Amino acid sequence: MKRSTRKDASRNVPAKQASREKQVASHALGEGRLRVAIEHVEPELDGGRYPVKRVVGDTIIVEADLFADGHDMIRGVLRSRHESQDHWLNTPLRPLGNDRWQASFNVTELGQYHYGIVGWVDHFATWQRDMRKRLSAHQDVTVEMLIGKQLIEQAAGRASEALRRRLKDLQAMLSRCDSSPQALLHLLLEEETEEIMADCVDHRLSSSYDRDLIVVVDRPQARFSAWYEMFPRSTTDDEQPHGTFKDCESRLSYIAEMGFDVLYLPPIHPIGETHRKGRNNNPRGDSASVGSPWAIGSRTGGHTAIHSELGSLDDFTQLVAAAHTKGLEIALDLAFQCSPDHPYVTEHPEWFKTRPDGTIQFAENPPKQYQDIFPLHFETDAYPGLWKELREVVQYWIDHGIRIFRVDNPHTKPFLFWKWLIGDVKASYPETIFLAEAFTRPKVMYHLAKVGFTQSYTYFAWRNSKPELTDYFTELTASSVREYFRPNLWTNTPDILTEHLQHGGRPVFMARLALAATLGSSYGIYGPAFELYENRPQKPGSEEYLDSEKYEVRRWDISRPDSLKEFIGLINRIRRENPALQSDGRLQFHPIDNDYLLAYSKQSSDGSNMILIVVNLSPHHVHSGWLELDLATLGIQANRPFQVHDLLTHAYYVWQGPRNYVQLDPHSVPVQIFAVRRDLRREEDFDYYL
Amino acid sequence: MKRSTRKDASRNVPAKQASREKQVASHALGEGRLRVAIEHVEPELDGGRYPVKRVVGDTIIVEADLFADGHDMIRGVLRSRHESQDHWLNTPLRPLGNDRWQASFNVTELGQYHYGIVGWVDHFATWQRDMRKRLSAHQDVTVEMLIGKQLIEQAAGRASEALRRRLKDLQAMLSRCDSSPQALLHLLLEEETEEIMADCVDHRLSSSYDRDLIVVVDRPQARFSAWYEMFPRSTTDDEQPHGTFKDCESRLSYIAEMGFDVLYLPPIHPIGETHRKGRNNNPRGDSASVGSPWAIGSRTGGHTAIHSELGSLDDFTQLVAAAHTKGLEIALDLAFQCSPDHPYVTEHPEWFKTRPDGTIQFAENPPKQYQDIFPLHFETDAYPGLWKELREVVQYWIDHGIRIFRVDNPHTKPFLFWKWLIGDVKASYPETIFLAEAFTRPKVMYHLAKVGFTQSYTYFAWRNSKPELTDYFTELTASSVREYFRPNLWTNTPDILTEHLQHGGRPVFMARLALAATLGSSYGIYGPAFELYENRPQKPGSEEYLDSEKYEVRRWDISRPDSLKEFIGLINRIRRENPALQSDGRLQFHPIDNDYLLAYSKQSSDGSNMILIVVNLSPHHVHSGWLELDLATLGIQANRPFQVHDLLTHAYYVWQGPRNYVQLDPHSVPVQIFAVRRDLRREEDFDYYL
Repeated sequence: MKRSTRKDASRNVPAKQASREKQVASHALGEGRLRVAIEHVEPELDGGRYPVKRVVGDTIIVEADLFADGHDMIRGVLRSRHESQDHWLNTPLRPLGNDRWQASFNVTELGQYHYGIVGWVDHFATWQRDMRKRLSAHQDVTVEMLIGKQLIEQAAGRASEALRRRLKDLQAMLSRCDSSPQALLHLLLEEETEEIMADCVDHRLSSSYDRDLIVVVDRPQARFSAWYEMFPRSTTDDEQPHGTFKDCESRLSYIAEMGFDVLYLPPIHPIGETHRKGRNNNPRGDSASVGSPWAIGSRTGGHTAIHSELGSLDDFTQLVAAAHTKGLEIALDLAFQCSPDHPYVTEHPEWFKTRPDGTIQFAENPPKQYQDIFPLHFETDAYPGLWKELREVVQYWIDHGIRIFRVDNPHTKPFLFWKWLIGDVKASYPETIFLAEAFTRPKVMYHLAKVGFTQSYTYFAWRNSKPELTDYFTELTASSVREYFRPNLWTNTPDILTEHLQHGGRPVFMARLALAATLGSSYGIYGPAFELYENRPQKPGSEEYLDSEKYEVRRWDISRPDSLKEFIGLINRIRRENPALQSDGRLQFHPIDNDYLLAYSKQSSDGSNMILIVVNLSPHHVHSGWLELDLATLGIQANRPFQVHDLLTHAYYVWQGPRNYVQLDPHSVPVQIFAVRRDLRREEDFDYYL
Repeated sequence: MKRSTRKDASRNVPAKQASREKQVASHALGEGRLRVAIEHVEPELDGGRYPVKRVVGDTIIVEADLFADGHDMIRGVLRSRHESQDHWLNTPLRPLGNDRWQASFNVTELGQYHYGIVGWVDHFATWQRDMRKRLSAHQDVTVEMLIGKQLIEQAAGRASEALRRRLKDLQAMLSRCDSSPQALLHLLLEEETEEIMADCVDHRLSSSYDRDLIVVVDRPQARFSAWYEMFPRSTTDDEQPHGTFKDCESRLSYIAEMGFDVLYLPPIHPIGETHRKGRNNNPRGDSASVGSPWAIGSRTGGHTAIHSELGSLDDFTQLVAAAHTKGLEIALDLAFQCSPDHPYVTEHPEWFKTRPDGTIQFAENPPKQYQDIFPLHFETDAYPGLWKELREVVQYWIDHGIRIFRVDNPHTKPFLFWKWLIGDVKASYPETIFLAEAFTRPKVMYHLAKVGFTQSYTYFAWRNSKPELTDYFTELTASSVREYFRPNLWTNTPDILTEHLQHGGRPVFMARLALAATLGSSYGIYGPAFELYENRPQKPGSEEYLDSEKYEVRRWDISRPDSLKEFIGLINRIRRENPALQSDGRLQFHPIDNDYLLAYSKQSSDGSNMILIVVNLSPHHVHSGWLELDLATLGIQANRPFQVHDLLTHAYYVWQGPRNYVQLDPHSVPVQIFAVRRDLRREEDFDYYL
């Protein structure tokens, strides 16, 4: 192999040489001399392919490896800019050791920020460092002093106007020192000299990181929100058969008092009549059937129309405004599918799949058939028009004051469509929140978050045991997932009444509510089914509700004395008062020697607020155990007592050291939510002690 | 915030709408309908920024996440091609579960291979799957049959010539079946139909991975090599003061008998006279001083000349040829620096840094000064000429038969220079091996490997205790480092006589040799210092050899009866006979309950060859312990005995289960190298048993 290649090679030499000269030349001035390498920037998602997510007010800590050949000193900056700005903000990087550097920037505006790293060799700082070593070794530094002056002269040649003046001053001072080498040296080694010189680096030889990294900055509600889902037609409590937006208005105080921020309404649009479903998903409804709100569209309109029995557009906008005065924001459902009666079906048959017999393809998951739903056909040649129309639907509701959308089954529409739609909406309305209702395979759920969804439904409802909860929430909060996937933990939905909730009664509802509200900074319940412990399945083994509101109007006695509303209100108040519960970044599980007890803590980003939660996962028995806290991570000194205060019962405990005893009775309160105070005062903390 | 944005937004609507239409349009036909997402391809280094490395004959297993929206079936291929080919080889991906897919390709040629992933929705396979479900549910499939025929018609419209003929046949058969729905169905669901249809997919809607990934394929010696470093001038064993290439020739058999593959010679070029160093690094040599070979260049020539006392160019090429006949390859040193007498200094002063007093900057690490060395100045404006000249130096030695270069201090020259130089050399001579002699900070060493070095020196010499060795070699072999950084483990070098070697005598030399040769598939020794236990430091605490060959000619009695040459020969023979020791990919450490005993195993890539090594790290005492093997990973059944055969002592042991006892006496042989035979036969394995 070697010999033959050698022979080939010598034949090729002239051509190779020519190509070599060309290649060297292509390293045009500057290019071949970029000496600083920049690697492993964090945060960076999938090699920079997708943006990370933060909220307004966050400080973004960026780290990177920076190093150069040789032993010269290097410097670097983190550069960042809001998409609306032309100029970079440069923040100096500081070394963390082992060639790792760090800096941070604050995000104060909604929208996208770009960030990157720039690094360069600092010749003057290198000269200063070496000069100090030379002086310590008593070497002759005559020539080195000239080199220092030369570096300053060169800098003056390229400096900006403002800097040039400062450099001229410096040069003047240097020339006055010419007769006194000691003074000259002193001046050259001064910190101020270093600073001036650092400001006029020859950036033609600076390296820039090869990816433009992006962070999407949302409003704080994107990370911290409590959702309440409610069927607007089930809000009536008189004899009237169908609730209206007006009834919803009367319900607002009830929801606001429980401490929710977002009121999510299933689709409010006209409901199709063809193949309309009857009670309990009966494929043949009768004249009394109200149908499923997700069978969208009738002769009276489609996705931008309102179901007449709910009220008028004015009623709707009034509901939105009324909610706002109570601190509630209305979220609408984007369910991009049609009933057979939707106007699109006749106006845009090209947006549906037509079968060889001329009929339109209804929804299927073979062998299951859903004749009341026509899916939109995203592989149609006419997809640009379809995309544009769906964008207009979103625009319509934005124009009517909606900024939060819960998206129905986003995993059945193409990723590229969502990337475009969400990107386009947020370019104009960066405050918009999209919650992805996808319960599908994990990589698909994660990918939807990567392409733009602000929040995501999770597997929380099916994570009930201690190892399940620990593993899942470790994955969500301690891996790169946390950079882009914001979990929204739902205790239940109109589709999901887990077997866990079906059995176990009030203790299970309390525990699941507390878990959702403290494991997740965003969570939701579907009510009043939840606070009223609705737990009857359609049939054994099913997760469908019996007499599901999806297919009928329900009347709920929200004033029932055993309602969980007070407990929910208390939990939501604790969430609002404790920043630790408003993000998931500092979630940590703590060992406890009982498989039915789950213990975890959360801290605010600065660590000043700390909450410790212990939950009894068994609805049946009192459980107790020894909790083993990781004191170092919690910032608690092992040799000092600290106080834990149960925010639910207002019991106070003084603990010391990592091991502490807890006991929880599911039939009273199956959860303890402790505020932890590290700075418990002792005698020496008082003035009169000394 | 929300209100003001909304107001802004409504002002902007017309402009926004226009931009929206433009954006939808920019998703030209096909683009918006690429439904398959491709993520997390492995191997992929730093988001695809750098190539991974393999050797000729390797099978490259590639994995990726592939998934689409919805529930349609998808397919994908791994595509790969050698850089010299225009066409992709497509290998079908097979699903591993959880949306992970895998395929592999073989690399049979030197150079670079490109690889990537393509994925698409398979409508026909989806149709077949759904049809089977419909049939099981006894649904009417009349319209679905028409859809299947339609899919085949559409495929015929876009198929290649060859496929169109097969499709026409299929269509003819289908039309013959028209009267028999059962026969039609049978034909549509046949595997052959699926295959034909899979071959004529509409690839306009296929997704391709967004990075062109590259694997550099080297010759096997890049991964498996045993190096011997020797000063050519120290090869004389008569009264002659200076060894020659002829003397080296006489030494070849000795080196080949020890089983080495590569003979690395420190620089063979003329040695400078200005500031020439004397014995033991004396800054003032006298007329008898031979100087350091790394002070390259004199009146008689520079990097393409030969030091006259070693012989002529003909002598050199004869040495290269003679080595080749003994299975040895000569490696030269690329030390890109100059003595003050190097011709470059006068011919190309622009390649050096000139100080304000007109002198040329000598090498420094302040306050240390090396007046005998002028570093090349890579920040010079004239760097393109410098790069080209250094490329010519490499070419010169390539033209004289050299394909292995040990590069001196590469971390003091820019990364971009090496990336270009190595890339350019390997584009014409892909068999070339560059070994990076960088002992510097870890990220710098790793980066040199990323930009192109074939092999790298390591920290092995300073890793002596059990946790040090375990941690370091786990980092090198079980992290992404193994994709690009090929460790070459040196027991010693002319610069490195570790304190560990200085104390401990023969047992330490044996243990370190065995560790280097079995922990690393590439390793090297600097001899004859090593095999003759040279262990006298220049002064206590120093790692410099006393009477170092760097500054004087040494004479070695290589026939000393206590030489380690037999032991080294045996170890190298074991390496050659056992594929397990020829790569580092399947290195695994095993617990053993004695801190002085280190145990690890290596397996060949197919697992058929397995070696278990136990080393007594203490040169002082006999140590014994209970070894705990990870039988599952080793592919050994816990309920069957297996045989271990010590390849050094030829002792045989039969073991069963994970726990086994070992004992090693450093004063006889401080290491056991067991060949492990899983398939130890028992009575039932013999024909006559039944």
